[in-house]
Amino acid sequence: MSAASAATPPAPITTMANAIRALSMDAVEAAKSGHPGMPMGMADVATVLFTRFLKFNPKQPAWADRDRFILSAGHGSMLIYSLGYLTGYERMTIDELKRFRQLGSLTPGHPEVDPSLGIEMTTGPLGQGVSTAVGFALAERITNARFGDDLINHFTYVIASDGDLMEGVSHEACSLAGHLGLNRLIVLWDDNHISIDGSTDLSFTDDTPARFRSYGWNTATVDGHDPEAVAKAIEAAQTSDKPTLIACRTIIGKGAPNKANTHGCHGSPLGADEVAATRENLGWPHEAFVVPQDVLDAWRAAGTRADAAYADWTQRVAAMDPSARKAFEAAMDRGVPAGLDELIAAFKKKVSEDKPSWATRVASGNVLDILVPAVPEMIGGSADLTPSNNTKAKNTADVKGRGEFNGRYVRYGVREHGMATVMNGMALHGGVIPYGGTFMQFADYCRPSIRLAALMKQRSIFVMTHDSIGLGEDGPTHQPVEHLAALRAIPNLLTLRPADAVETAECWQIALERVNGPSVLALTRQNVPTLRTEHAAENRSARGGYVILEAEGERKVTLLATGSEVSLAAEARKALQAEGIGAAVVSIPSFELFEAQDDAYKASVLGSGVRVAVEAAIRQGWDRWLGYPGATAVAFVGMSGFGESAPYQELYKHFGITAEAVVAAAKARL
Amino acid sequence: MSAASAATPPAPITTMANAIRALSMDAVEAAKSGHPGMPMGMADVATVLFTRFLKFNPKQPAWADRDRFILSAGHGSMLIYSLGYLTGYERMTIDELKRFRQLGSLTPGHPEVDPSLGIEMTTGPLGQGVSTAVGFALAERITNARFGDDLINHFTYVIASDGDLMEGVSHEACSLAGHLGLNRLIVLWDDNHISIDGSTDLSFTDDTPARFRSYGWNTATVDGHDPEAVAKAIEAAQTSDKPTLIACRTIIGKGAPNKANTHGCHGSPLGADEVAATRENLGWPHEAFVVPQDVLDAWRAAGTRADAAYADWTQRVAAMDPSARKAFEAAMDRGVPAGLDELIAAFKKKVSEDKPSWATRVASGNVLDILVPAVPEMIGGSADLTPSNNTKAKNTADVKGRGEFNGRYVRYGVREHGMATVMNGMALHGGVIPYGGTFMQFADYCRPSIRLAALMKQRSIFVMTHDSIGLGEDGPTHQPVEHLAALRAIPNLLTLRPADAVETAECWQIALERVNGPSVLALTRQNVPTLRTEHAAENRSARGGYVILEAEGERKVTLLATGSEVSLAAEARKALQAEGIGAAVVSIPSFELFEAQDDAYKASVLGSGVRVAVEAAIRQGWDRWLGYPGATAVAFVGMSGFGESAPYQELYKHFGITAEAVVAAAKARL
Repeated sequence: MSAASAATPPAPITTMANAIRALSMDAVEAAKSGHPGMPMGMADVATVLFTRFLKFNPKQPAWADRDRFILSAGHGSMLIYSLGYLTGYERMTIDELKRFRQLGSLTPGHPEVDPSLGIEMTTGPLGQGVSTAVGFALAERITNARFGDDLINHFTYVIASDGDLMEGVSHEACSLAGHLGLNRLIVLWDDNHISIDGSTDLSFTDDTPARFRSYGWNTATVDGHDPEAVAKAIEAAQTSDKPTLIACRTIIGKGAPNKANTHGCHGSPLGADEVAATRENLGWPHEAFVVPQDVLDAWRAAGTRADAAYADWTQRVAAMDPSARKAFEAAMDRGVPAGLDELIAAFKKKVSEDKPSWATRVASGNVLDILVPAVPEMIGGSADLTPSNNTKAKNTADVKGRGEFNGRYVRYGVREHGMATVMNGMALHGGVIPYGGTFMQFADYCRPSIRLAALMKQRSIFVMTHDSIGLGEDGPTHQPVEHLAALRAIPNLLTLRPADAVETAECWQIALERVNGPSVLALTRQNVPTLRTEHAAENRSARGGYVILEAEGERKVTLLATGSEVSLAAEARKALQAEGIGAAVVSIPSFELFEAQDDAYKASVLGSGVRVAVEAAIRQGWDRWLGYPGATAVAFVGMSGFGESAPYQELYKHFGITAEAVVAAAKARL
Repeated sequence: MSAASAATPPAPITTMANAIRALSMDAVEAAKSGHPGMPMGMADVATVLFTRFLKFNPKQPAWADRDRFILSAGHGSMLIYSLGYLTGYERMTIDELKRFRQLGSLTPGHPEVDPSLGIEMTTGPLGQGVSTAVGFALAERITNARFGDDLINHFTYVIASDGDLMEGVSHEACSLAGHLGLNRLIVLWDDNHISIDGSTDLSFTDDTPARFRSYGWNTATVDGHDPEAVAKAIEAAQTSDKPTLIACRTIIGKGAPNKANTHGCHGSPLGADEVAATRENLGWPHEAFVVPQDVLDAWRAAGTRADAAYADWTQRVAAMDPSARKAFEAAMDRGVPAGLDELIAAFKKKVSEDKPSWATRVASGNVLDILVPAVPEMIGGSADLTPSNNTKAKNTADVKGRGEFNGRYVRYGVREHGMATVMNGMALHGGVIPYGGTFMQFADYCRPSIRLAALMKQRSIFVMTHDSIGLGEDGPTHQPVEHLAALRAIPNLLTLRPADAVETAECWQIALERVNGPSVLALTRQNVPTLRTEHAAENRSARGGYVILEAEGERKVTLLATGSEVSLAAEARKALQAEGIGAAVVSIPSFELFEAQDDAYKASVLGSGVRVAVEAAIRQGWDRWLGYPGATAVAFVGMSGFGESAPYQELYKHFGITAEAVVAAAKARL
């Protein structure tokens, strides 16, 4: 674009897009850091989307039937902040734009989930946005199937970058989206040919539309600076029976006369001179952060486009049968499922009487058989390990896709990372509570998304079975050793490792009641006895750690354990007691919940004599409890390296994780 | 296949394939666990490959120019074990097959790297094999470019499953393979339409060949039970200028009359009845584990097919100019680069005198400027963060691909996981020492491959910059908080977090000298002062932890820190000393190396008074050193949750990670 062309009065849509460009470059300039190139490049596309298509209401941002807009390329955060301000999200003021990337602002470096600002999810780690959007689109169809077109019937739009599509998770999620025929998902790809290292063709020469067609997507390619072409492509996408990828050929940093189309504008401020030259070039003579009233009015009007649709929708909701409305609102409110206490208590009572020797994965499956029919929001799934993860409740149908979304179970395929992103999207969308299974070993594959669930405070429930060397013959590639520690390390993630069927039910209750964060259930492949044979309605696991077996006589030894090793500790206790040594067993299904208890409680549980911890995993993290004030001596019985392939009973012996070893460790320290 | 057809004498190649089928089902039956379906389904394809194409020598299994064969679908491990026995790898005896999945056998549940058995890498976690194979193929071209066709000129073959290709990492690596034009990579896809959950079309309806063509691959589709068709496809692949995917349409469990083509034979023994029926059906009347001599002879002959080629190759090596031969052998021997000590010592001497205030990523870049020209095996790269990771040494060219492989730097694109797999493949191939960079946050994306590098004991060097909230404005999506703990949790991985330019050089030396395992270098974005201002030739970081600043007077306080927080601890020490409180600073660049020191050393370093640890990360793991015997009181100054977006100096204050906080924590405990 030359300075001459800026002399002709620009069409209103271009002027509106220039407001995004100016705000973006000004905010990055003020912050002295950030990414101006992407918002400037995609300003035209975003303007078309927000002024002609997106169904949204900045005054009612939580509208359940709004279209969802995901800025997958989160580094271009000034795009969404600019849009938030321009379209009239009340809290997204011009002052917040001026505080871009400053402590406590609403405008951090990457967008952080807050629907009240039009930010549907936290993005930045590439690939997550576009993949999580698949979960939004899936939840939309599932809630549509349940509640009907009158209540939930919207699109999910994504702006994605080259980097998003290079990430492997985009393959997993987009392949699944194609398989399921999620035709209300529309991805606008910022095809700008520039990444941090330089031209994308340094490393990336995929035919991306062909790739997406191979997944069963519809594709289109347009000039991203031609508003009519973009609009036509979106219109066509809206009527497709497939998800659509629209490749928008754009110029990164468009408007910057010297830095456009270079990686120089990707991740750095333009600099004062180039900012001035860009103003000149765009014919945007206004001061930094100033949007003239007529342009702001045009944008604010775009923000009211769906006012009538919103009013109609509220009327439809108001006109509903009260019980149906209650169910709808309960689903969308993301609360604790009704009746959960009673269901869990009944299950606990029964298993405390029956005393089954179930693997905790089997216990979990049995809990699900009860919960899933009673909690219609629960949508299960597994990354192709259904018979191993015990995640499919009896008599539940698959979510087949391609028009059939009334099932309760998603076949995610061998796509662990994709599954986790899709679960996050479902949780974010609302109306559903996603849970999904894989082997705990493959928590590593999902880790970026598990972290994001924790950062976004979303109720994604990860069912991780085969949680130790107890899986046996599959060997070290499949035996988690460091995974419990690594999961416990993630802030705001609950890692729950129940010891028996009773604790498994309690852990499910904890996970479902935890509306503001994700949980991992770490479950055994191998059978374990029921230890909690006296029924208590109280959820004892909710304290994180508790004395599951008291010492007889004075407590000289406290054995700390989780999951399958609690029964091993119970055996050791029996042997110690037989020698007259008072020993208690403490089960710690959740380090995080136990940490949150007060000091007096923790001290009383951990005891004051010898402490021996046992877990078929590495020691890291256990020193917190071993070193907690009060112990006279401590020991850890567990793993110090990778596992081996053999029947699991032999492995426990081979690695010295036995009741005998626990007894010996305790006695040596008395 | 009907029993009738088995009555006609089968062609020899089918008989040879039936030997694989019989051994596989027998071993799984004996172990009472395992995956018979895949080896039985791919037996014909494998037989064609091993008897007509694969250049290998079971008597000289380490032959540097052998073709590499990767069983990506590692659950089908009996395929590679059967092939190992049949073709004559000495240690792979029939007894080892009988001990399938037993403790200490050579036949664990999933193949574990051991080239002496024909096992080029550990597989099992899906997607890793096919992706790592890209690294093999890349290393082959790089070493070919360096040493010429006479020395390195081979193919890399892969057998991959549906699951392998559903995994996102396969997208990243195969897209890169297409971009680089790695035409000596040939992937045989076991297109059997069955996964654990049932038919793959429950979850997977990609047009996989079209997907691979979109990456720039050549593709073919054949009947995997038609040996001639398979052979023709391999022949065509060998002459392609692109990598090739051959879709081999197969019947899982082929030969089992009732369970073939069902998921019932995927991951469970066939059962005695079906095993008997399969023998009948295949016309294989031999006892379990018995291979008739004529069939074994035919297989053993296949194992000698390349004897002449091997002899020629050894002659070519023998005929080399001695210095060139020495360079070749040094490269292939995976030893410690010559002259490393001197290079590192000279660098350390200079920076200890110059005392620069460099970010450790900058220090790392400066070390690489010296190492890369001196160590021709080093091949760098970054996942599209070259200017941020400081991974590209001065005056080094890119590995451009498509015939141009003489560069030293790989542009991995936004493919962190793919990068890690490719690095592992390069390390496994030999001839190169791979290092590659990304932000430490994205260690999560690479985690399955970092773990596999540790399990396989490979020298992959991961350069992870922006290692804390010190990265500032990019915010919590980009700020590692739990990543140091999570990396330290992985067995056999060295996590190195140097405090200054001197320690950075020492950590590079440690990583390069560590021929039997991977390392992560955790490096700052922000500047840190040089603390090691007195030059010592000794690599002090090699002890893992050491007193970097002694107390003046009696030591009352020991401050433990790593990386950027060591200088913060040094400030705190100064303040304490000013108040007459003797305080030492301990730098712990590697928890793992420090753990490996003897108790007396550890106790002397950690001291006996008050201990305060400071790290801009979570506490997990630190209790090991805080709780180590001897301290009178302890404290930790660090993070307890996610970060924020703001300039980094403000973040350190906001989260209370300051010299003042360290001083206060120490004084409160004196």
